Amino acid sequence: MSEAPDGTDAESSRPEVISSAVLRIGGPSPGFAEDRLVREEPLEVRLRDTAVAVLMRTPGHDEELACGFVVTEGVVARGDVRFASHCRTVPLEARGNVINVMIPDRVAFDPEAWQRNTLASSACGVCGKATLDRLFVRADPLMPLARPLGPEEIGAAMAAMRAQQAVFDQTGGLHAAGLFDLRRGRLVVVREDVGRHNTVDKVIGWAALQRRLPLSDHLLVVSGRAGFEIVQKAWVAGIPALASVSAPSSLAVAMAQRAGMVLVGFVRGDRMNVYAGAEHTRQSDAAP
Amino acid sequence: MSEAPDGTDAESSRPEVISSAVLRIGGPSPGFAEDRLVREEPLEVRLRDTAVAVLMRTPGHDEELACGFVVTEGVVARGDVRFASHCRTVPLEARGNVINVMIPDRVAFDPEAWQRNTLASSACGVCGKATLDRLFVRADPLMPLARPLGPEEIGAAMAAMRAQQAVFDQTGGLHAAGLFDLRRGRLVVVREDVGRHNTVDKVIGWAALQRRLPLSDHLLVVSGRAGFEIVQKAWVAGIPALASVSAPSSLAVAMAQRAGMVLVGFVRGDRMNVYAGAEHTRQSDAAP
Repeated sequence: MSEAPDGTDAESSRPEVISSAVLRIGGPSPGFAEDRLVREEPLEVRLRDTAVAVLMRTPGHDEELACGFVVTEGVVARGDVRFASHCRTVPLEARGNVINVMIPDRVAFDPEAWQRNTLASSACGVCGKATLDRLFVRADPLMPLARPLGPEEIGAAMAAMRAQQAVFDQTGGLHAAGLFDLRRGRLVVVREDVGRHNTVDKVIGWAALQRRLPLSDHLLVVSGRAGFEIVQKAWVAGIPALASVSAPSSLAVAMAQRAGMVLVGFVRGDRMNVYAGAEHTRQSDAAP
Repeated sequence: MSEAPDGTDAESSRPEVISSAVLRIGGPSPGFAEDRLVREEPLEVRLRDTAVAVLMRTPGHDEELACGFVVTEGVVARGDVRFASHCRTVPLEARGNVINVMIPDRVAFDPEAWQRNTLASSACGVCGKATLDRLFVRADPLMPLARPLGPEEIGAAMAAMRAQQAVFDQTGGLHAAGLFDLRRGRLVVVREDVGRHNTVDKVIGWAALQRRLPLSDHLLVVSGRAGFEIVQKAWVAGIPALASVSAPSSLAVAMAQRAGMVLVGFVRGDRMNVYAGAEHTRQSDAAP
């Protein structure tokens, strides 16, 4: 079932939004109309030709999603991902929805052991942790930030991500994640998806394919809640700071504290709450 | 590893919110303060003593969550769930986070086959679907609604759910789902959780434990997006109508159309969009 790499990978260029008939009730223009829906389709992720997951995702940047997923879920080490390509030997209706991640021959991957250890998971994004003991993916210690993080740059990173949320503007139905390079002071990538965790996997997969991991001195900004898995995925990628427009959970705060990660929530311009790593932040960018 | 049923199940009564120190930046009262975080902890779900999933959830109503999960994910038939109880023979730190669902002896459940067929899943809530072919849980045809659904009752159901979101008001970090009995015209249960899918599983688990499945002539209202899995879970529970405050995805609309389910999005008072089953709705409750 090995697939030839597909350099062009035209499957990735399908639209992320589709039209649908909708009946509007109430409001200024009731009646049937055309509406735009965010596309959601299943993606089967294979690692060296073995299926390891089915993700519900918005098509587009599938290579990044697949590579990011296998790294952040601890299936393979972050330096071992080479590339991913859509499988061509699948039925027509699944074309574009099956992708294979390749790893070097020297890297051991035992599909049977993986499948034995894997259990179902609900909306949580906690994958394949058969018992609570194995819930926490092992991650290397984070490199400390080169300098304290200020509220203006966090607010600016969030605003820059929001400005690039093209699909959200059309459908109102999409999450986003962005990666902000703290040394250069600029947003380097933004990805959207119906799935909150997928946005983070796409961003981290982008970095993995560019050989940028670990992401020292980067800030991850996310449009939704900061749950435990988002913190964990950031940690595995070596990201020392995470900011969210919404609330963190108790476990997200506990894990960020354990990781030594800056965790910021409820970002509204340059107002925000710092839930972990306050010693690595400052109240104002103007302060020394 | 069989556990004695625990009728009192004191583990369920832990607070859903915990206090945490937070550094506020900007705003009227900057500096360190106490904040309230929604609790998030892992729950290992066992079915007849075999682990089938680890869910990240807000503790509380764990029995409902576990029973709802095994039903809506197609692990067991909806009539076969008897009860669930927290396991007592687990290490102290996992106490309250492991729960066992019991099914009658006559019901076959092959743990090895289940585990073989189960694959990892990310934030999507699609659990244990090893291939795209097996993505869709089989569900019985829905019973049609007794009468067309009007916007005022949909809006009222949403408002009633919102009024009961106690934890959201404290933390801003919680999703909710509610079940509205269309015959009696009242909301019968509301559940909150950090996980969107968990809220639906808790509501459906509540109904399963009360022997109320299938939920003909009920409306499910959800605080978040209506993705494919939410529609599927509703379908498995026999719910003929689903309303969300936010956007549906393309696959959610396709699945609702296939199920013959009314799917409503962007509910704002009595303004809303009907994405599927428009023939079972009316523009105004006053209309014939």
